[in-house]
Amino acid sequence: MSTPEAISPLAPTAFSDMAPVAGVRLASAACGVKYAGRTDVLLAELAAGTTVAGVFTKSKTASAPVDWCRKSLPGGQAQALLVNSGNANAFTGVRGLEAVEATVKSVADRLTCRPSRVFCASTGVIGEPLPAEKITEAMDGLVASLADANNAAGWEAAARAIMTTDTFPKGASAVAEISGVRVTINGIAKGSGMIAPDMATMLSFLFTDAALPAGVLQSILAEVADRTFNAITVDSDTSTSDTVILFSTGAGADHREPDDAADPALDDFKAALETVMGDLARQVVRDGEGATKFIEVTVTGAETDFAAKRIALSIANSPLVKTAIAGEDANWGRIVMAVGKAGEAADRDKLAISIGGIEIAAEGAAVEGYDETPVAQHMNGDEIEITVDVGIAAGEGAGRATVWTCDLTHGYITINADYRS
Amino acid sequence: MSTPEAISPLAPTAFSDMAPVAGVRLASAACGVKYAGRTDVLLAELAAGTTVAGVFTKSKTASAPVDWCRKSLPGGQAQALLVNSGNANAFTGVRGLEAVEATVKSVADRLTCRPSRVFCASTGVIGEPLPAEKITEAMDGLVASLADANNAAGWEAAARAIMTTDTFPKGASAVAEISGVRVTINGIAKGSGMIAPDMATMLSFLFTDAALPAGVLQSILAEVADRTFNAITVDSDTSTSDTVILFSTGAGADHREPDDAADPALDDFKAALETVMGDLARQVVRDGEGATKFIEVTVTGAETDFAAKRIALSIANSPLVKTAIAGEDANWGRIVMAVGKAGEAADRDKLAISIGGIEIAAEGAAVEGYDETPVAQHMNGDEIEITVDVGIAAGEGAGRATVWTCDLTHGYITINADYRS
Repeated sequence: MSTPEAISPLAPTAFSDMAPVAGVRLASAACGVKYAGRTDVLLAELAAGTTVAGVFTKSKTASAPVDWCRKSLPGGQAQALLVNSGNANAFTGVRGLEAVEATVKSVADRLTCRPSRVFCASTGVIGEPLPAEKITEAMDGLVASLADANNAAGWEAAARAIMTTDTFPKGASAVAEISGVRVTINGIAKGSGMIAPDMATMLSFLFTDAALPAGVLQSILAEVADRTFNAITVDSDTSTSDTVILFSTGAGADHREPDDAADPALDDFKAALETVMGDLARQVVRDGEGATKFIEVTVTGAETDFAAKRIALSIANSPLVKTAIAGEDANWGRIVMAVGKAGEAADRDKLAISIGGIEIAAEGAAVEGYDETPVAQHMNGDEIEITVDVGIAAGEGAGRATVWTCDLTHGYITINADYRS
Repeated sequence: MSTPEAISPLAPTAFSDMAPVAGVRLASAACGVKYAGRTDVLLAELAAGTTVAGVFTKSKTASAPVDWCRKSLPGGQAQALLVNSGNANAFTGVRGLEAVEATVKSVADRLTCRPSRVFCASTGVIGEPLPAEKITEAMDGLVASLADANNAAGWEAAARAIMTTDTFPKGASAVAEISGVRVTINGIAKGSGMIAPDMATMLSFLFTDAALPAGVLQSILAEVADRTFNAITVDSDTSTSDTVILFSTGAGADHREPDDAADPALDDFKAALETVMGDLARQVVRDGEGATKFIEVTVTGAETDFAAKRIALSIANSPLVKTAIAGEDANWGRIVMAVGKAGEAADRDKLAISIGGIEIAAEGAAVEGYDETPVAQHMNGDEIEITVDVGIAAGEGAGRATVWTCDLTHGYITINADYRS
């Protein structure tokens, strides 16, 4: 939560273009939850009939808002989303639930809906009671300023209101067709530390004007989260508050409503959702605390996709691999170490490693006389590609996974050794 | 492997006093395996009839020397130990085994024993062929200089020969009684990075003049390793080379030879072995790369001892906890986070956390008005104690574990981002 000193060198050059999403109205305000002089509360109003799906942290010490959303999710309906930054409302005992109830009620009263249709999330410091009154006192103003989510500026303001140590706001947008009808998916996200599966972002909210039943939405969200938000890691730490919620307003153009997530009519929608969620997830990595390199790790030749992902995450989470990359050192010995410690089957004597597309180890040993120049050039860049074949399986059935992470630098230490002081 | 700039601030003031161990002769030499001007090979000759036990890395990409020791261990007999630093002989393909065979043969020829009784270990850079001839060419000199291990200087020289990034040599010694007869246990260790269970040190060698069958020795070693070398972590990374070997020469005073590890006559021996191994394990943490704080984490109230250890390691491995401690910040919110991500049962609303003996969180929330002054004083010191009760079980049956780690600092980044350059 310390004030970021500079925008991440890996940040996109600008906030994404965002198409309008019918049925979503947005407002944000500076409530002084913790910091002065910045927006810290986001309110989204959703059209009547909006359906909802969510995936949450697997932490055993989840926050009060996560408890609330989990309890409300089976209803499948949403009318509002309320998010604050500055305070996570986590590990706050019975007062945590009271604060959720107070803020949710203040939304539900004004939008005349059931409290269980108000979803919420909080991010920031853990263990301090959430000053709910700062939010409830601002509610009249928030509701009065709700505006259609028609332009990128509105979405950028929403993305800014949920930032903590983030150095840039994160948004992504895509269009898809369902049965020939065009629908839009927009998303915002925040997160830059305490980022690891599962979940891998602290908060992300996705909005589509498609009309999809809650059950279908939930299947699709869980599947796509696995390849996006659950495939990134900054520091292997998992927040108590990680939340990804997908709202489907049904306020766009009419289309046939598929009642099965496997309906081929949804293929294009799924692909677009993966584009949006993947883009947001990678933006979270690009804002990793202290990050100077964006790293893509692909593992092939594993027993299963699951095994491949565990090995890829073992590489992506290894402090020794991450510091080597910070030092622009193509230290594949540390990659071998990380493959070994993952606990999944790997054939040491068939292992092959490529960096930046250049094979530098094969058949379990260094490739003699490989051209070091392009590898060194690749390591000097800010996008690093590592591919490892673990030599257990080949062809169609071979396990494969890609994950994304960033390097581990002095910047991470500086940010996190001074967090509260 | 970069040259250490300064001795760790957490180092013991002096190398341990070491009692003589009958049946052990030591020699070391500067063979130039990688670095000039320092000893880098250790040879130990063991009395005829020496028994042996070992525990090794669980890495799926273990080094050639680890493969060799695993294959030789069932024989239960040892006559020599050969260790080099500077090169790990790991991920070196078929040439790795050839290098082991060449160096082992050069020992076996001179000591006229079977190669399978020569145990070996290598530590240093991964993926570069071991220049075996540098070691074999020095073998005549090494054998000629073997001397009884009668004084601390001899043990210190042995400990120095196996160092890599270590900033100080590590030794420990204890005496015990078996059936009224006094025996001695000495140990040396090396390791300061790539340290995590299982195993938690790179290399440690233990020597006793007791007479114990190999099977008994193996049971005892595995049990004690669990509470010592497998209860420390520096950076969660696991080496390809981790090796702990215990030699029992039987060259001390005669005692009744227990044939069962559960024999009460061995209780004092086990306690002394735990003293030596625990001392060495904690010395490895005290030499953690960049460490400025030594951290003891105790978890109580867990479902089982195993669950308690997983939660304790989750805390000890969390970059956010480790950087907070580096910043002298009693940030218990991050401890809550680390408890939550461990995946073991924890009751969020009963969780209690003490730092330096002061309870700062209880019943799932901050203790209001706790005295911050002694906590801040404790955080400013270089020995940090964290105790967490996870509120699942109480009394006799409650799971409990203690692990040791160090903080994560700029020093770690500096050492590891410049490793090979």
